[in-house]
Amino acid sequence: MTKEIDLNCDLGESYSVYSYGMDKEIMPYIRSANIACGFHAGDPTVMRQTVELAHSHGVRIGAHVGFPDRLGFGRREMKISAEEAYDYILYQIGALSAFLTVKDIPLSHVKLHGAFYMMACHHEEIAKAAVEAVYAFDKNLELYTLPACTLAEQARMKGLQVIPEFFADRPYNQNRVRMFDWKKEELGTERDIAIRAKEAMLSNLNEDTELKTVCVHSDTPGSFDIIKALHHTFSNDNRFSLRKAHHLTKQPDSQLLYKA
Amino acid sequence: MTKEIDLNCDLGESYSVYSYGMDKEIMPYIRSANIACGFHAGDPTVMRQTVELAHSHGVRIGAHVGFPDRLGFGRREMKISAEEAYDYILYQIGALSAFLTVKDIPLSHVKLHGAFYMMACHHEEIAKAAVEAVYAFDKNLELYTLPACTLAEQARMKGLQVIPEFFADRPYNQNRVRMFDWKKEELGTERDIAIRAKEAMLSNLNEDTELKTVCVHSDTPGSFDIIKALHHTFSNDNRFSLRKAHHLTKQPDSQLLYKA
Amino acid sequence: MTKEIDLNCDLGESYSVYSYGMDKEIMPYIRSANIACGFHAGDPTVMRQTVELAHSHGVRIGAHVGFPDRLGFGRREMKISAEEAYDYILYQIGALSAFLTVKDIPLSHVKLHGAFYMMACHHEEIAKAAVEAVYAFDKNLELYTLPACTLAEQARMKGLQVIPEFFADRPYNQNRVRMFDWKKEELGTERDIAIRAKEAMLSNLNEDTELKTVCVHSDTPGSFDIIKALHHTFSNDNRFSLRKAHHLTKQPDSQLLYKA
Amino acid sequence: MTKEIDLNCDLGESYSVYSYGMDKEIMPYIRSANIACGFHAGDPTVMRQTVELAHSHGVRIGAHVGFPDRLGFGRREMKISAEEAYDYILYQIGALSAFLTVKDIPLSHVKLHGAFYMMACHHEEIAKAAVEAVYAFDKNLELYTLPACTLAEQARMKGLQVIPEFFADRPYNQNRVRMFDWKKEELGTERDIAIRAKEAMLSNLNEDTELKTVCVHSDTPGSFDIIKALHHTFSNDNRFSLRKAHHLTKQPDSQLLYKA
Repeated sequence: MTKEIDLNCDLGESYSVYSYGMDKEIMPYIRSANIACGFHAGDPTVMRQTVELAHSHGVRIGAHVGFPDRLGFGRREMKISAEEAYDYILYQIGALSAFLTVKDIPLSHVKLHGAFYMMACHHEEIAKAAVEAVYAFDKNLELYTLPACTLAEQARMKGLQVIPEFFADRPYNQNRVRMFDWKKEELGTERDIAIRAKEAMLSNLNEDTELKTVCVHSDTPGSFDIIKALHHTFSNDNRFSLRKAHHLTKQPDSQLLYKA
Repeated sequence: MTKEIDLNCDLGESYSVYSYGMDKEIMPYIRSANIACGFHAGDPTVMRQTVELAHSHGVRIGAHVGFPDRLGFGRREMKISAEEAYDYILYQIGALSAFLTVKDIPLSHVKLHGAFYMMACHHEEIAKAAVEAVYAFDKNLELYTLPACTLAEQARMKGLQVIPEFFADRPYNQNRVRMFDWKKEELGTERDIAIRAKEAMLSNLNEDTELKTVCVHSDTPGSFDIIKALHHTFSNDNRFSLRKAHHLTKQPDSQLLYKA
Repeated sequence: MTKEIDLNCDLGESYSVYSYGMDKEIMPYIRSANIACGFHAGDPTVMRQTVELAHSHGVRIGAHVGFPDRLGFGRREMKISAEEAYDYILYQIGALSAFLTVKDIPLSHVKLHGAFYMMACHHEEIAKAAVEAVYAFDKNLELYTLPACTLAEQARMKGLQVIPEFFADRPYNQNRVRMFDWKKEELGTERDIAIRAKEAMLSNLNEDTELKTVCVHSDTPGSFDIIKALHHTFSNDNRFSLRKAHHLTKQPDSQLLYKA
Repeated sequence: MTKEIDLNCDLGESYSVYSYGMDKEIMPYIRSANIACGFHAGDPTVMRQTVELAHSHGVRIGAHVGFPDRLGFGRREMKISAEEAYDYILYQIGALSAFLTVKDIPLSHVKLHGAFYMMACHHEEIAKAAVEAVYAFDKNLELYTLPACTLAEQARMKGLQVIPEFFADRPYNQNRVRMFDWKKEELGTERDIAIRAKEAMLSNLNEDTELKTVCVHSDTPGSFDIIKALHHTFSNDNRFSLRKAHHLTKQPDSQLLYKA
């Protein structure tokens, strides 16, 4: 029996004149794009362009919501309240959704970014607020999380579909990911990364915490090569079935009002 | 035959610790609230609270979209492109809509703010982009505009419902409103203001440009008294029928997750 | 022998169209003004106006530096690095200093704001970075701090003059101030507050940690009454000598280029 | 007789995680660096690092002040008031100066950025306010301007030293530069650009408007090659003498507190 694998990537992190990440190169290799929503990265124009890019590849679109901290790219812990967490998440999901609504594209999932993600995984109040926000906006949204954490627990209790994720481009120590303060050398080659990802995806047996998706950050050095290696590795191992991107709506993309 | 009048107000302009405008006092007297969306004013928490406040009074909710210029409160002209206008409007409508979606409240209208408003009224490209954004998001949204302007024309051509508005708290010279650089003395007393508003609402006979709504800005000095005077004046003149706010959804407001 | 008392206040926290705090009322009663520098509060125009206001009362001017977090008013802990702390402090001191330079007014002191203040008091690395920044800019600047904390220690080791402060408008538990999450009721009347402040100013005998200044936040409810009560109380007790504001430069304030 | 030439470049435009421009490569070839001050581009950490980089090459440092418009990179006209212009310029000059003060490096000049620059060149009130701000901060600062414009006139009337500049990387039509909306093809090869720059620097004979500096924007495509071509061309033509960068202070750069 084959195991289905979702490849996801954090994208749409350019801003103003600043180009960031290899979004165009990466898009053909992934199934799910997590698009920044203008708090830690992205802006309205970048969001629209990234939605159009993802959609042209049939890639599923998720809201990648972060702290209001551009200077720190959302990677610095901020002691926000549960109420603020709820409000910030809804604001960002809504803002991204507008660019989907006008093209009749569904929002498929939500993923928290950086320090907001880690904070929600470990603080019950923030986790609850995040789950409330996502559920209230659309109870059919998938929530990407660490496999075993407070956020995942709260989401399951509420009835949200949880997608446990493995970070291919981060070091793990005894099943704990090190999101920040790591070095490229710790990752090894793309091949090493792909092999580790395969092992991880096979190892997890518990029904709830079973890993379902592999993430690469578009701003990891060599991200494009990593994604290609993962794509190649999972595609050529018959224990896995790489889930495909596909066009979610029928209308052609020809009448875009604005082009970059 | 009575003429129906809509009273609208720009609200939700508080920000962070900064309280602004008499939203709570004004809400019982209006039918339509234009809520700032976090660009020129407002923030996610203020937006949620203002949505809850408006909804508790049965007031219709519109998105009040502005320039990304907090330092100038959206009142300084910015030479943005048509593409940016389109993107900024969608982003803001979407962000506000999230707070409506979670409470099953419909968005009823859109109104541009400050310099964005005036720019759209006079520049065809910006007007077109604004109309495209509103129409693409939801073609049933009403668009509040000056009665005779490029924005109104473009909206009608596209098929959007236009709500021509009269600014009770701004001086007019030969039918042209002076939005900025005016003095309180030019307005006279609340009674003067109310009488002028009545005359204006009666005077306009052309089908397209007929005034349908009267606006007061919540941050105009004495805004609350002006709104009460307008409410009183229109309520006690049988040539007019003041349109009522009413609860738009059935569910009670009791299970709010977060309270201010 | 009388003990000299400095009264200081956090001011200049208005922003854009948002007026905040009773700066004009308070200014005649204090000796030292801590002016926000555009990160957590304030903006270039507010800063210039507040500098002019303070100077017209002969009040000493200090830079009140905060986190880049307007949405949280600088009151939410942010895990910034020591390097960022150094850079943020220098940037803000420099920005405020420009408005002093053009009027030939000296900068007298620096005080950290909100969560940045508390973080510097308790984290050695942040404390060191803050001290480095202040010292490097001008080694004669005074640094306002909690009386016994890492920040004060680091400053003394470096050779900066430390001004230990007592917060009149915050509750203390066993000599520990509770900056956030307190209630007005805990403070009692203005008279209670003034008596507590007097006791605190007398109690501290250690040379290093001896309290030298009393702070009131301009946005504390009733701040103006508290400051008047403190002014009255210290003025009428011959154990104390309230240090006076005085004009620091000779030139008259008449040729201000721009007026609010 | 040789004509002295200053080569200047707009730099320090990176922001947060976003790297922008070839600052490190360009620095050895220029005499004067115009460093962004955190409004249109740059941030406190980028500013410090760029100051250190420029200083290590003995490059003169100027403040490159822009509109508070990150989303538009300061290139969109904003109708700010003269008062706001004055305040924004002072704030930015001060912020940058702090990073110079701590290393005992003098600020040599000021240059406005993008739409602020063009607006000051053509609007008398903005020009006056800009000149007032620069002069008030330090009357020995040089002001870079278009050779014949309101800004240059106002600066000369006030007594500021004006440095008329030629934009090597922008098309000119009958002596008028086109700052925005140009295409790379219009510039020709680096050699074409260098020849045009030479001609321009020779052509101007009026004492006041004589061109003294040649500018390249670090974000112009191929900026590094253009600067090398200019450096080569002016160095090898004995009608010109390329002014050298040189260490402005004696102390070595060895004890930097923080390194990138």
